[in-house]
Amino acid sequence: MEEVAVVENKQVILKQYVDGIPKETDMDVKLGDKIKLKAPKGSSCILVKNLYLSCDPYMRGRMRDFHGSYLPPFVPGQRIEGFGLAKVIDSDDANYKPDDIISGITGWEEYSLLRSSNEQLQLRKVQLDDDDDIPLSYHLGLLGMAGFTAYAGFNEICSPKKAESVFVSAASGAVGQLVGQLAKLHGCYVVGSAGTKQKVDLLKSKLGFDEAFNYKEEADLDAALKRYFPEGINIYFDNVGGTMLDAVLLNMKVRGRIALCGMVSLQSLSSSSSSSQGINNLYNAIPKRVRLEGFLQSDYLHVFPQFLEHVKGYYKEKKIVYVEDMCEGLEQAPGALVGLFSGKNIGKQIVQVAEE
Amino acid sequence: MEEVAVVENKQVILKQYVDGIPKETDMDVKLGDKIKLKAPKGSSCILVKNLYLSCDPYMRGRMRDFHGSYLPPFVPGQRIEGFGLAKVIDSDDANYKPDDIISGITGWEEYSLLRSSNEQLQLRKVQLDDDDDIPLSYHLGLLGMAGFTAYAGFNEICSPKKAESVFVSAASGAVGQLVGQLAKLHGCYVVGSAGTKQKVDLLKSKLGFDEAFNYKEEADLDAALKRYFPEGINIYFDNVGGTMLDAVLLNMKVRGRIALCGMVSLQSLSSSSSSSQGINNLYNAIPKRVRLEGFLQSDYLHVFPQFLEHVKGYYKEKKIVYVEDMCEGLEQAPGALVGLFSGKNIGKQIVQVAEE
Repeated sequence: MEEVAVVENKQVILKQYVDGIPKETDMDVKLGDKIKLKAPKGSSCILVKNLYLSCDPYMRGRMRDFHGSYLPPFVPGQRIEGFGLAKVIDSDDANYKPDDIISGITGWEEYSLLRSSNEQLQLRKVQLDDDDDIPLSYHLGLLGMAGFTAYAGFNEICSPKKAESVFVSAASGAVGQLVGQLAKLHGCYVVGSAGTKQKVDLLKSKLGFDEAFNYKEEADLDAALKRYFPEGINIYFDNVGGTMLDAVLLNMKVRGRIALCGMVSLQSLSSSSSSSQGINNLYNAIPKRVRLEGFLQSDYLHVFPQFLEHVKGYYKEKKIVYVEDMCEGLEQAPGALVGLFSGKNIGKQIVQVAEE
Repeated sequence: MEEVAVVENKQVILKQYVDGIPKETDMDVKLGDKIKLKAPKGSSCILVKNLYLSCDPYMRGRMRDFHGSYLPPFVPGQRIEGFGLAKVIDSDDANYKPDDIISGITGWEEYSLLRSSNEQLQLRKVQLDDDDDIPLSYHLGLLGMAGFTAYAGFNEICSPKKAESVFVSAASGAVGQLVGQLAKLHGCYVVGSAGTKQKVDLLKSKLGFDEAFNYKEEADLDAALKRYFPEGINIYFDNVGGTMLDAVLLNMKVRGRIALCGMVSLQSLSSSSSSSQGINNLYNAIPKRVRLEGFLQSDYLHVFPQFLEHVKGYYKEKKIVYVEDMCEGLEQAPGALVGLFSGKNIGKQIVQVAEE
C-alpha cells in the first residue's frame, strides 16, 4: 500500500461576519484538520501546495453576511479563499499532473484540495515559457485577475481613443497601475491619484503617468481635477467610488466613459446606510452624455488568451512594469488583506505562503 | 411702399435667475416692444406667429445662473424660449413660405423672428399629410421633442429585447407615456410610477402599462419595486433621479440598462448641495454589471425621420395613444411651466397661444 504523507494544514479562518472595514482580529491563523497530500481516487480533484495568495479588495464583500451577491460569503469558522498560485502535488484530474503550476481560487491555507470542474474557481494551468523571465508571482497580478481586470475594463468598457484624457484612482494599486500604462500605450494623457507621496512619486517616476496627485492633500477634489484636466476627462477608471467619483462627474467631457471597477471607499457600507454622503452629481451625466458601466473581469474570459499574449509581450519589450508588495508567511495574510483598505500596500499585495 | 402691420407682442419674461424650483412669480407676462410682422430683407429670417408652446422640465436648467451647460441660460429681463409650433407669416428664407407650419425653439411670445440657420433652434417644417387626423399640437409631444426623447432613449440607450422587464418613472408624463407604450410594442413587461391615483389609473387603463403604482403611497420604494419586479429590472428609463433611482439600483438584473433622461427631483439643486441625500447604491452596478447612460435627444436627430414614420404609423394603426394637458393663453404659460415640478400636469403640458 502506498505511503501517503499527512500534514497539519495551517489556515486563515474567518472568525465571524464583518460589518464595515475588516480588522486583523476578524481572522485567525491556526492549524486546521490534518490533510492527506493525496487527491482521492474518483474525486476528479487536485491536491495543491499553495505558493502565493492574492489580497483583493473584492474579498471584503465575501466577509459580509450578505447572500445576494455574485459570490457567496465566506463561512465563519472556515478558511477563506481567494486567487492564488499553487503547485500540484497529486492529481485525480487528467488535465493536471504533479509539479504543474495552477492559478485560480484556492484556499488561504498551506494545502488545498480543488476541483477544476468548479468553474467559479477559474482554475487554469500557468504556462511558463522556457525563456520566461517573468516572476511567477506576476501571474497573480500583472498576468492574473488584477491585470486582466485592468485590461478588460480599459479596453472593453472605456473604449479608449488616442489622445483622450484618462483619470485613474487608486492608481498605484494592483489594477490602476496597469490601467495607466495601457492608457499611455494607447497614446492617452493619463493622470492618477493615490494616497501617499511615495505612491505619487512612483506613478510619475516608475509607472509613466503624465501627472499624479495625493488626494489626501486636496481639500477640493473638483479643483484638483480641473487643474489636471482643464478641458475635462474622457475616461475615468474608478477604483474607489465615493467623493472622488462625485468630483469626477463634475469634470467629464461630452460622451465620457466611466468604468466602475471597485468602490473601496463605499463598499463596506450597508446599502441602506444613510450616513454615507452618496453621489450628488450623477445629473451631470445627462448634459454630458456620460456612460457609467459596472463590470466584472469574469465576463470577459474569452479575451484572456489575448490579454496574456499582449501584456506578456509588453512586459518582455519593457513597455510596462509592475509593482508588487510581497509579504511572507500565512501569518502575515490577515494583516496584508486588511492593509488594502487603509492603503498600506504599495502595488499589488501578495502573500508568499511557501517557496517555489 | 408696402404696408406692414406692427403689433404689440405679448411675452413671457424671466424676471431674475432662479435658484431651486421656479415659481410663477419668477416670470412676468407683459407687452414687449412693438414688432413688425415682416422678415427684414437680407436677414434670412422668418417671422412666425406662435400657436403652441411646449413646457419641458429641462427649461428649469436655463432659468439658473449657470453657463457651463449645453444650452445657455435665459437672459433676465428678456423673453424665454422653448420648443413650439408656429405659422410662418413672412419669410426671407427660401426654405420657408407664408402659412408653413414650423416646429423648433421659438420665443414664449405671440410673434417671433427666427433664423433657421441657427442649428440650436432645430427648426423644421412640419409635414402635414392630407389625410392627417393627428392633432397639430401632437407635433410638440408625441411627434416632437418629448416623443423623440422617448424613442431615441428607449431604442438607442436601453437596447430593449422581447420579454424584458421595464420600469418607467414619471410614467404618465410627456416622455414616459410613450416609453411605456413602445416597450409594450417590443413585447416587454412594463411598470410605471406616478404621483397621483388619477395618473396611475391612466397608466393602467388608457396607456396599457402592465402595472403602475403611486410612489407617494410607498413608504419603501425598494419593497415596492420588489413587489412588481420579483426577478429584477432589465431596463429603467429614469425621468426623476433621486430616491427612485437609488431604489432601482437595488433591483437591477445582471446587465441591466438605465437611461438617464431627466432628474426632476434633483436638477434644481446646485451641484455642490450637501442637503441632497445623494445616490448611495451605485456600487450595485458593479456586481450586476449595470450600464447607466445620460443622453440628449439632439444627438440622435439622424433617426428623426425614422421616428416620425414609425410613431405616426403606430398612432394611425391605433397601437398608441397620447395624453396632452392643454392650457389656453400666454398668461397661463408661467403656471403651466411651474406646474411640471409639482406634477400638476397630466400628460404632455402644452400652452395654446393662438388659434390655428
